[in-house]
Amino acid sequence: MSSHSTGESVTVEPDNVRRFEQSARDLQSALPEDAFALVEGVEERLLAVAKRAPAQLVAPAMESLTSGGKRLRPLLMALSAGMGEPEPEALLQAATAIEVLHTATLIHDDIVDGAATRRGEPTTVAAYGRGVAIATGDCLFAECFSDLAGIGDPRLVRAFSEASEGLAAGELEQYRADSAFVDLEAYLEHIRKKTAGLFKAACVAGGSLGGLSIRQIDGLASYGQALGLAFQMSDDVMDLVGKPGLMGKGIGTDLIEGTVTLPVIVALQEGDTETIQRVLVTPDPGPELLEAGIEAVLATDAIEKTEAWARREIDAALEDLELLPEGPERNFLEAVAAEVVGRDI
Amino acid sequence: MSSHSTGESVTVEPDNVRRFEQSARDLQSALPEDAFALVEGVEERLLAVAKRAPAQLVAPAMESLTSGGKRLRPLLMALSAGMGEPEPEALLQAATAIEVLHTATLIHDDIVDGAATRRGEPTTVAAYGRGVAIATGDCLFAECFSDLAGIGDPRLVRAFSEASEGLAAGELEQYRADSAFVDLEAYLEHIRKKTAGLFKAACVAGGSLGGLSIRQIDGLASYGQALGLAFQMSDDVMDLVGKPGLMGKGIGTDLIEGTVTLPVIVALQEGDTETIQRVLVTPDPGPELLEAGIEAVLATDAIEKTEAWARREIDAALEDLELLPEGPERNFLEAVAAEVVGRDI
Repeated sequence: MSSHSTGESVTVEPDNVRRFEQSARDLQSALPEDAFALVEGVEERLLAVAKRAPAQLVAPAMESLTSGGKRLRPLLMALSAGMGEPEPEALLQAATAIEVLHTATLIHDDIVDGAATRRGEPTTVAAYGRGVAIATGDCLFAECFSDLAGIGDPRLVRAFSEASEGLAAGELEQYRADSAFVDLEAYLEHIRKKTAGLFKAACVAGGSLGGLSIRQIDGLASYGQALGLAFQMSDDVMDLVGKPGLMGKGIGTDLIEGTVTLPVIVALQEGDTETIQRVLVTPDPGPELLEAGIEAVLATDAIEKTEAWARREIDAALEDLELLPEGPERNFLEAVAAEVVGRDI
Repeated sequence: MSSHSTGESVTVEPDNVRRFEQSARDLQSALPEDAFALVEGVEERLLAVAKRAPAQLVAPAMESLTSGGKRLRPLLMALSAGMGEPEPEALLQAATAIEVLHTATLIHDDIVDGAATRRGEPTTVAAYGRGVAIATGDCLFAECFSDLAGIGDPRLVRAFSEASEGLAAGELEQYRADSAFVDLEAYLEHIRKKTAGLFKAACVAGGSLGGLSIRQIDGLASYGQALGLAFQMSDDVMDLVGKPGLMGKGIGTDLIEGTVTLPVIVALQEGDTETIQRVLVTPDPGPELLEAGIEAVLATDAIEKTEAWARREIDAALEDLELLPEGPERNFLEAVAAEVVGRDI
């Protein structure tokens, strides 16, 4: 899963960032028609999910479900399913359910982290308070499993519930990492649960709905997990070198929040440990300390090593896809993977 | 469901309370053997659920799952299933899952309510903080649905997810009732979601696992809901007249927390509205104000009216059971219903 050899590393610079965003738009226009239609259908269904929430939860559910998520998980599910022959209604329901589950998790995460904004908007907990935020998340969890039950495939329920167990654990590990005691293994375990788990579930559910073989579904599972790991590592890098447009976050957010990411772990081993640790454990580091912390990380080869790691994951992901039938969906999954590490294929 | 006619009301007094507790023990010894074995099996499974939680959640999960719940929901499921021919392993799994779901809800409720103790022990949020409590609840939700998925019956997933949607909404309604704006309809809606929903799900799941007919399962659904409503009303009465042994709560807890219950709604209409409202809206009423509030409620016929209402629900529940096959399970379900309103049948 995680250790394929690789060569050169990719340098992320402003030009590279703009290129990434341009390519993301290009990717969007190259989306297979069925998958594109599905993501549009998911948007409509998400509105319906919010509207059928209990009265006091409609507004927070609506805002959190329509706050401009990239719908990456439904998209992965649609592409995975599209390599087989999914029943369209079941796929639409499951693709909606995974976005609902993802949203529920974000709402609860933001309570745990005490986050004030997400994607530039106030979080549910900031806007409505803890009680409403807990209830909204719980309600969306329930809606997710209710929708899944309607499909009648127990494998889907299992894929989703396994992913959400991991997500629950992940919430907390991030929480406990506040004291900067995270080591590499703990980090990998954390992002495996927190980001990769739901990517994997999306791919597995899609393959299952498409009626693919067990071997092919396993391939998709590995692909989804490796993609998720690389995606998170890439996100970690962007937090240090910038990409506010796409992420809705400023630079150094992870450092400010005391979240130990892969480049930070590398830098803690190789660089000015003292400065970096001071930023991590200081509850509200000012701009000067933050800048010193970011510079201390960038002075090492933390970014290059992280990118190299992400590329290894992507190489593994691309290999996993070789088990899947050729066609526009597989091409697109390959392109998504390449895009995460800003690489042409 | 809720409006069958009835005659006299039952007075709850200390003697009556002791009789109730004695009868509960008698009931326990009269439990059909299969149902008794199942509840014992559930205890073991709950330990296993806690042990397979992510490392940091094992202790809070263990404590909350083994803190002396009465296992009423697994018991209802076992009795409902026992009127047909359930597959034992599936029943054990589903009965464990419903207790896990119930526990997850209690953990999140206690965060919303800021409750310090439950059943005489510190709540998860009090002992471990908000982050751990949110994650533990989320993890138990996921475990519940994961176990259900293993059974492979989508009807169970749907029954559970519908119940948990209601529970999520119920959390919040109780929260918003802090300002004493609750009317009768809102109260009934609240307890239908908050207490009756999971009783109903337990009975429906049991009937479904037992292979009963749709009509019989509908009867069990009505029974479960009516039992849940009566159970909650009876609990409301006990909060005013006492029964700390069984509930782990002191007298007047609902009033202190500003929770508007059925007897309080009646008393607000008929009695010293001003005093009762003052207790409800005062964040931390002292013993004098609390006593005045309780006396103001008891000076009306709120207790009698609430008990009469509970009896009407129980009459309806008993009628619903007539659709079910006669035998020890049905006898026991009838006895449970009668017990809730402290009545011999």
